[in-house]
Order: sequence, then structure tokens, then C-alpha cells
Amino acid sequence: MPTIDPWGAELPAEYERIVTSFGLEQFSPTIFPEPNRLMRRGVVFGGRDLKIIADCIRNKKPFYALSGIMPSADKIHFGNKIVVENLRYFQDHGGHTVILIADLEAGCTRGVTLEDARRRAMEFHIPAYLALGLDPKKTVFYFQSENKAVMNLGYEFAKKITLNEFEAIYGAADPGRIMAAVTQAGDMVYPQLATRMPGIIPVGVDQDPHLRLCRDVVARTKTKYNFFPPSSLYHKFTPSLDGDLKMSKSKPGSAIELPEEPAVVCKKLKNALSGGRDTLDEHRRLGGQPEKDMVFELMKQHLVEDDVELQRIYAQYKSGKLLSGELKQMGCDLITEFMTDFTKKLDKARKQVGKLHFVKFG
Amino acid sequence: MPTIDPWGAELPAEYERIVTSFGLEQFSPTIFPEPNRLMRRGVVFGGRDLKIIADCIRNKKPFYALSGIMPSADKIHFGNKIVVENLRYFQDHGGHTVILIADLEAGCTRGVTLEDARRRAMEFHIPAYLALGLDPKKTVFYFQSENKAVMNLGYEFAKKITLNEFEAIYGAADPGRIMAAVTQAGDMVYPQLATRMPGIIPVGVDQDPHLRLCRDVVARTKTKYNFFPPSSLYHKFTPSLDGDLKMSKSKPGSAIELPEEPAVVCKKLKNALSGGRDTLDEHRRLGGQPEKDMVFELMKQHLVEDDVELQRIYAQYKSGKLLSGELKQMGCDLITEFMTDFTKKLDKARKQVGKLHFVKFG
Repeated sequence: MPTIDPWGAELPAEYERIVTSFGLEQFSPTIFPEPNRLMRRGVVFGGRDLKIIADCIRNKKPFYALSGIMPSADKIHFGNKIVVENLRYFQDHGGHTVILIADLEAGCTRGVTLEDARRRAMEFHIPAYLALGLDPKKTVFYFQSENKAVMNLGYEFAKKITLNEFEAIYGAADPGRIMAAVTQAGDMVYPQLATRMPGIIPVGVDQDPHLRLCRDVVARTKTKYNFFPPSSLYHKFTPSLDGDLKMSKSKPGSAIELPEEPAVVCKKLKNALSGGRDTLDEHRRLGGQPEKDMVFELMKQHLVEDDVELQRIYAQYKSGKLLSGELKQMGCDLITEFMTDFTKKLDKARKQVGKLHFVKFG
Repeated sequence: MPTIDPWGAELPAEYERIVTSFGLEQFSPTIFPEPNRLMRRGVVFGGRDLKIIADCIRNKKPFYALSGIMPSADKIHFGNKIVVENLRYFQDHGGHTVILIADLEAGCTRGVTLEDARRRAMEFHIPAYLALGLDPKKTVFYFQSENKAVMNLGYEFAKKITLNEFEAIYGAADPGRIMAAVTQAGDMVYPQLATRMPGIIPVGVDQDPHLRLCRDVVARTKTKYNFFPPSSLYHKFTPSLDGDLKMSKSKPGSAIELPEEPAVVCKKLKNALSGGRDTLDEHRRLGGQPEKDMVFELMKQHLVEDDVELQRIYAQYKSGKLLSGELKQMGCDLITEFMTDFTKKLDKARKQVGKLHFVKFG
């Protein structure tokens, strides 16, 4: 079998543009030891100050990986799964893992109180993050609404930016957005209040403005705080089953939620954008187009862990030996297995919530 | 002696304009029982929802009076004194008194950390407020940076206003200003989190935008919180000794700080804008102009408690019997007495700080 790049590691134009426009570093799987599936397969494609984190990993120096949970929705999605897997990677490579519950942000949406947000987080979102692979013993959680230090940093950071700068970063400015952004900037450096150390924030690339804001205010408060500007790791979105860049709730037929009934998901996969040819004859002759097939993309991003196995599927589909319907059936079997496993782990994780490490605030 | 209005209760044009433009209620000393010196003499000139507070006073219903201390400056000024005297009025008439230390706001200014702000507040600003008349047994204090509930309300309020609305209220918007304003809006209703009740904020009229913002967001969160919109009580500034609307640090020769050396202050009074005539002869013939005399204004606002005594000074000056130099000497004697008394009370109050009621946060 020739050495090919079977997984579309070439960056689609949309992502290429982001990397260039905002001066991101392009991600190479060689930068980190033992890259995970997402890093190996080009799902992770960029970042900021990645070498600093690579250096911490290789030299066993302290660093942290941080992300937030937004406990407003009833379900989570593949974007959350990617974040958790990347967090888990850093957790396994020596990083302190910090998860904040963005209850303040969630608590301002229609009909969700802080108490609702807390309950949802405890009953679903936190267990879901554990079910996706976070080690409960090695992860520290806090509620944003309880963290005075974060709110105080947010206040101070707000004083360090102008409205024009904010608009240049976010494209628009309004008080709510500003408040959310400066508070998040506080979250991103919060673990450094106790000990100055590098940290990395794995996020969808649409979150880069938050990183830019934080890195700006960190630079402006250097004399006072001397924080390390947070590093970031960017991943592509899991595309919509109809081929759009990103799954969206506005098209539920093309989006998969976690958890979701396997039978329902399999039906969605049947209607997914396929890389198969119009006729059986044509498919056998020309071969399938795995690069354009959303079920193959799902396997690549989420469902097939083993590279050799994925390579085999790719080759069989590409050669025309494997039919689109067969690929979809494989996808259905795999997602059924995944959802069953996830649901089981979710139930188990719900029982662990009482034993988690929450930051205690005085 | 004819019944005259000796104390310029007619509202100067600047204040008249504010009352009209922003739909303030004009203050009448008859609205509250036993009005204090500032209320009787037109220094207090306007407000919002004053009848609600008057009703609480007369019917002994619970209400609160709230103000903030900004612990960045080294001294306080007559504006603070007016606020404290009005707070004391409400305290004496059944109002719960709440003073917040705006350490977040102060802590963002150059070179002042939260720790600095706290230390300054404890060593000077809080004792100064006690020295000016607050009853330490009846006053509750808190530090803004410790008050999660206020910060959470600020976050929520930020989500309830647009940038255009903010600009319409404040004339300008920037992230720091927005953050300060929404946090202050949180402060203004904070006492109602435990018990919904009317509250009044005595402030200089330049602070009215904060009231408007708070009242707007209170209206928008009515379903969720059902807060009473805070009432407000507005006072004129103590004018600059050269006759400008407001004392300013930028003209130290025309501003008096608390505390300040009496000898220094007396020198400033000597140079103050006088209502005396150019020659002795003219003064005896035409009489003085107390309305234009800054030393008389200072007596009216701050130095002469007794109305009959003030009336006597007014009449003597007006008739030409009392000379400008004699009025200035009286002013010097009175301010010397005031500063001596204030300094003594300040020393005493410093010893009471350990016994104050600070809100305890869990």
C-alpha cells in the first residue's frame, strides 16, 4: 500500500484562511509526544505558543489545560467530545486539568437561573465530561459564579481594553459580550494565581477571539501579574452530516447530539452526504470518495481509534470494494457501540459527582 | 425682618437644566419629616421616587440607604460629607445603612492593588465616614471585591443592556466604564437580595446616570427579581472657593480636603470669591452679597448648623454691617473648629474599625 495521506490532513480553505489571518501556528503532530487521534488526523490543526507546552510535557514542567462547560443546553455535541479528548491528552501528559462551569454565562439566558445551571451541570454536563474520558481524580472543577478571583480579574481586564480594540477582536461589542469575554479571560489565567505556569486552552477555532483578548490583557498587566499568556490548541469542527462546516441544532437531521438514540442516529447517517458514486457499477469502477463522505469523516474523527483500521476502510472505500451503504452500516454499528458505551459511562459518572474535586472558596 | 429666602433655594440654571432634562423630582423639604440642614437649605435639590422613601419613614416600613466609598484618594471632600450627612438622616429615620467599599474600582487605578485599597479603606476612609456621623453600630459594610452576589448581578445586568443604550445614558462607552457601571447597579440593589424593600442612594447629581442604568435593568429583570428600583437623592456640589460649580483637585487653592490644616484652609478662605464690595464705604452703603460669597456658602452648607444663626449672619452681611473680612474670619474660626473636631473624631473612629459590622461572605 503506498504511503498516502488518507485523512485529508490538507487544511480546507476556511481553516487555512484563519491560520493566516490571525497568525496562528499550524499544528504538526510531531510537536507533541504520542499525539492523540485528533492530532494525528489533522482534526487539530493550529494553536498559539504550542512549543511552550511541548517543552513542559517533555521536561515535566508544570502546566495546566483548561476548558469551560456551558450548562445551558440539554445535550452536548462532538465539539465537546473533541475538547475533552484533547484535555485528556494533556492530563495524561502531566497537565493540571481545570474545568470551569460557566454558570454565570448560562444563568443569564432565558429561563435559566444560577441554580438551574448548577443542577444541570451536576446532573448532566460534568458526568458527560467524565464519560468522555476526563479522569475524575485528576480534574479540578469550579463554578464561575463562585470564583471571586476570576470576577475580580475580569473587572481589572475590562479596564485594560478600549471599545475599539474589543470591536476589532470580536467584530462587535455590547455590554453582555464584553462581560462574558473579560470574565473568560479571567478564567483562562485563574490557575496561575496560585502558581505562575504555562497553560493551554483546547477550543474550536471560533473561540480564538477569547484567546486574543486574554493574551492582550495579560500583556498589559505583565508588570502587576506576570501571567504566562495562555497557549491554545484549535480543532476543526465535526462537519454537519449534509457536508456543511459545522453541525448545527438548526438542522437537527444533520447533527448528532450526545447522547442520542442510536436508531435515530443511524437514520441520520443513511441520509448523510455520501462519497459513493451514483450507481453500483460506477462505484466499483471509479471507487468511492472518502474525503467527501460524512460517515467516513465521522469514523476518522470519532469512531475508529486504530490508524491501520481506518487506513484499511479508506483504501477499501477508495478502491470501490466497499460500498457507500456498507460504509454507512459500519458507521451505524460503530455509533451504536459508542452511544451505548457513552450512556453506560454517563450513568456511572453520575455516581462519582459527589467525589469530585471542586475548588473551595473562602 | 421680612420673610426672605436667605439661602438661595432658587435652583441655579445648571441644576434646573438637569432636573428638567432627566425628569428628576424637585426636592421639597416638606417631603421628609425633620429635614436636615442640607435638605432645609436647598443643597439637596432633587431625587427619584422620593415619596416611596418618605412613606417608609412615616409608616416605619423597612428601607435602606446605600452609598459607596472609593478608597483610592488620600483625602475625602465636602461631597463625601454631604453624602454621609444624608445617610445619617436616613439612618436616624429607620433606614438600614449599607456602605460598600469600591475596592474593585479603586484597585484598577494605577498602582493601587486590592490590598492597598482595603488598607486605605480601613485606615482612613471608613473612619472618616464614621467621624462625619455614621453610627458604627447601625451601619453595615462590605468590600465589592468579596461580594459574589453583586458581581453576579453585574454580569446579569450587562446582558440586559445594549451598547447604544449605555452610550445614551453615559455619553460614552468603554469596557471599563461598562464593568464599573453594571457592578454599581448590582451594589444598588444588593440589600434587596435578602429582603425586597425600597432603598435610597444619596449622591451628587453627576451620579444620576448610574441610577438610570440601575433602574432600567431593574425594570428588565422584574419578572426574575422583582427589585424595587432604587430611589435617589441629589445634592448640589460644594462650590469651588473661586466660585466654580465644584471644588476640584486640579485647583488646590480653591478646594478644601478633609482633613486639611486649618491654617492652610484659612489662607484659602482669604482668597475666596467674596460677596463684599470694592470699598468699605460702598459695602456699608450697598450691603454685601451673601449669595455670591463662597465663605457664606460654606457656612450655609457646612459650618453653621443653626438656621437662626445663619439667618442673622445673612442679614448682617446683606445690610453691610458685617464686612467681608469679618465674615472670612468667622469662616476661619468655624472651619478651624470643624477640622479640629473632625481630626479628633477620626482618631477615635480608627479605634472602632475592629468592631464594625462587615457582611460575611460564605
